[in-house]
This record gives sequence, structure tokens and C-alpha cells, in this order.
Amino acid sequence: MRNLKLVLEYDGFKFHGWQYQAGVRTVQATLEEAITRLTGEARRVTAASRTDAGVHALEQVVNFQTGSRHSPEVFVRALNAILPRDAAVVSCDEVDPKFNARHRAKGKIYRYLIYNRVERRAFGHNYSWHIPEPLEVDAMREAGRHLIGTHDFSSFQAQSREDPDKDPVREIKRIEINRAAQGYICSEFEAKSFLKQMVRNMMGTLVMAGRGKIEPGAVKQILEGRNRKLAGPTAPAGGLYLEKVFY
Amino acid sequence: MRNLKLVLEYDGFKFHGWQYQAGVRTVQATLEEAITRLTGEARRVTAASRTDAGVHALEQVVNFQTGSRHSPEVFVRALNAILPRDAAVVSCDEVDPKFNARHRAKGKIYRYLIYNRVERRAFGHNYSWHIPEPLEVDAMREAGRHLIGTHDFSSFQAQSREDPDKDPVREIKRIEINRAAQGYICSEFEAKSFLKQMVRNMMGTLVMAGRGKIEPGAVKQILEGRNRKLAGPTAPAGGLYLEKVFY
Repeated sequence: MRNLKLVLEYDGFKFHGWQYQAGVRTVQATLEEAITRLTGEARRVTAASRTDAGVHALEQVVNFQTGSRHSPEVFVRALNAILPRDAAVVSCDEVDPKFNARHRAKGKIYRYLIYNRVERRAFGHNYSWHIPEPLEVDAMREAGRHLIGTHDFSSFQAQSREDPDKDPVREIKRIEINRAAQGYICSEFEAKSFLKQMVRNMMGTLVMAGRGKIEPGAVKQILEGRNRKLAGPTAPAGGLYLEKVFY
Repeated sequence: MRNLKLVLEYDGFKFHGWQYQAGVRTVQATLEEAITRLTGEARRVTAASRTDAGVHALEQVVNFQTGSRHSPEVFVRALNAILPRDAAVVSCDEVDPKFNARHRAKGKIYRYLIYNRVERRAFGHNYSWHIPEPLEVDAMREAGRHLIGTHDFSSFQAQSREDPDKDPVREIKRIEINRAAQGYICSEFEAKSFLKQMVRNMMGTLVMAGRGKIEPGAVKQILEGRNRKLAGPTAPAGGLYLEKVFY
């Protein structure tokens, strides 16, 4: 048996997220079907990050065991021929048998795109969050600084109690917020791992600071309150991209 | 009566081009319907460029006469509320009664996007031309230099004889071809006006030079032959953007 690592890009718009769910189109099921078609084997794949419905990936990392003798190059080409057009394999490498894309991840970067002009665009509706009101990027940065470091992020965790993370403590290493070309604001969030919907909940709260709805310093109290109701709304899934996973 | 000038952005993917055609969705008909809904008037709109099916516009320029007293700002907001999400008004200004978006245009820039990596992407299929083979950008530039200036562009005109341009002579002022981020090659073509499908036919021919299928110097003979069959294939519509119109 060989252990293969795939880097996968997908447009999340028409997927109900990464993880297998009966009756809906997920990235995991789509990839597993493609692997079965190529190798004849039924294989479970493990991903670094279980992205939500509508969230995109530029470099999701996945691994799976296979008895297939195809070279990694053949896997790239053959899977790209089988996969639907909104999912693509960027690269494939044989890795040591113990490599696990989820547990071995040392860090992740998520990117969030906001489109910040009064006029709406004709392009990219499911790929950014359109905020027509002016945003103070400096206030967003100042608010973001309170999130850096190790904290209990209960206030930024998905309210759903179906799959509660046991430990709500996470360490945010970096938050960077910059104006980009053509009215976009690009934010990056780096951590070893994130709670469910944590990036979107932080983004929704930073936008409240950017709109002047809360003081940047209020983020400190929101964190300390450990209550999801204190933080801002969940930013739309379409603006979020899993950008990079470090090992 | 006032004469209004609109700058319009559209995603061409689901439009059968600019120009009105019975039974299909065109940008012209979509915009005219929106104006009628807003003003109660049935108005013909004139565009700087009659883009083909699948071609996008970042700044199409349009004008129309109206008896409406709405301010230009109201036109922007109201039309954006009425128009479908793949068309958006960027700006609106009242202009002199003789302004005609088509006849007053002094120049146009078209942009063409090529995605030039072996691996296919999960994003942007209808917004660039994926060429997996290596392209020599220097050879494309050298080939392009033969197109600069005033020439008979019969070899680069759409073969369809339905709506032949009487005079196939055009002046290309500028062709610029550059590698951009993430595997893209961005080309710009500037002229006072272009023949039907001329940019896509030039692009298809420059790509042949970039792939080494023809010598860059062959473009001179293709021009002189005045025969569409001599030039390369028509590049796909999805990679083409009307970028700018000068007055």
C-alpha cells in the first residue's frame, strides 16, 4: 500500500462542503468516486480541513492509501480527466505511510475576499462578500489585533451544537487585512487550526468594526464573554478560501 | 429629452452577445427592458461595441435618450436593482444631445486572458482560454508587431458573410502581451475599431506563434494573403473582455 498526498483546488459554490453527507454533492464524495473509477478501489480520503458548503479551496491537502501502481503524475492527469470541472488536482506526491493530511497539519491560512464598492459587480458574486458601505480598514486591523494569540474562541464558534469542538482554545498567529485592486479587501487568517465557522465569524465581527458599529476594543470583551451571541454575523461562505496548509 | 451615457459591466457567459436577437437573451434587450421598467419609456440603446456571445465587458459604453427626470445617480441605483446579477451599471452621466456611444468612440481596448498551465483550474472556465502547452510569449510579441499599424485585416475578419464590414482596413495602435500572476497571460489590443471577431482571430494566430506552429514572421504573409483561412483559429469568446472605450 502506498500513501498519496493530493493538493486539490475547488470552487465551493456547487458543493455542500467537503465532508461526505448522504444525498448531497460534497467534495469528499466526488473525489472518492473519481479515485474508485481510476483504481477500482473504494478508498476513504482525509482532508486537512473540512470546509463548509460554499467555501472554496486553492490548496486543500488530502491523503489516501492505495494499492494502485500508477505514478503520481498519472494520478494528476487521470483524476483531472475524471473530476468535474469545479474540482482540480494541482499536484500528487507519494508520502511516508504515516502522513495524515489532517493530523500532521502544522498551520493553515484562510483568505477572505470582500468587495467594497457602492456599485455591485457583474462578476464574482459567489466568490466575495459585497459590502457597499464604506469600511475603515484601520479599524478592522485594530479590532483584529485583539484576536491574535491564544484565546478561548467560544464567541466565534458555530452555534450549532451537533459537533461541538471540545476545546475552544485556539492560537491565531496572524491576521492581515489589505485593500487590493478593483475595490477588493483581502484578509488572511493564520492558525494551527480553527473552530467551525471561526474565520467567517471573526470576519463578520471585524466588518462591524470597519463599519463603525462597534469599537475595535469591543472585540476584547466579545472574546472574554465566551458567547457566540456577542460577536458579529457569520460572513458569507462564498468569500472564504482555504489558501494554504503547512506541514 | 436628455441623452444619458451609461458605463456597463457584464459577464458575457449567459448572454448571446450584445445585440438584440429575437428569442435569445442579449445584453441590449436586457438593458432596454430594465430602462422601460424604470422610466415607462420604450428606448433603443446604442453601444460602443457589439460584443459577441460569451464575450465580457468591464466598461461597455452605452447611450440612450430619455424624457425621465431621474438623476444619473438614481439611474445607477435603480437599474442595478432591476438588472440581473450578471449585468451592472458602473456609472451614469448626462451628456450632450449629439453624443453617440458608437460613432463618437475614438478608441477601444480589448483584453484577452489565457490560462497557461498544464493543470486545469477549478475556477474561471468561462473567463479565460486554458492552453496547457508551453507558450513563448516573446514569439507572440514578435508576431504581434507585424499586426501593428494600418493594414487590410481580411485574414482576421469573421468568415461569416452575413454582415460583412465594407472596409477591412483597420489601424492597430498597440498590442501588449504579458505574463501575469498564477499562470495567466494577459494581452491587450488597442485600435479605433475592430472587425468582427478580429481580436479573437488575432489571438488564435498569436497563440500559434507562441506554440511554435508558425514563425512570428509568417503573420506578415497571413496579413498580405487577405484570406481568413490563412490565419489561426478563433480564440474562445470567454477569454475576451471589452476593457475600455475612449472618447
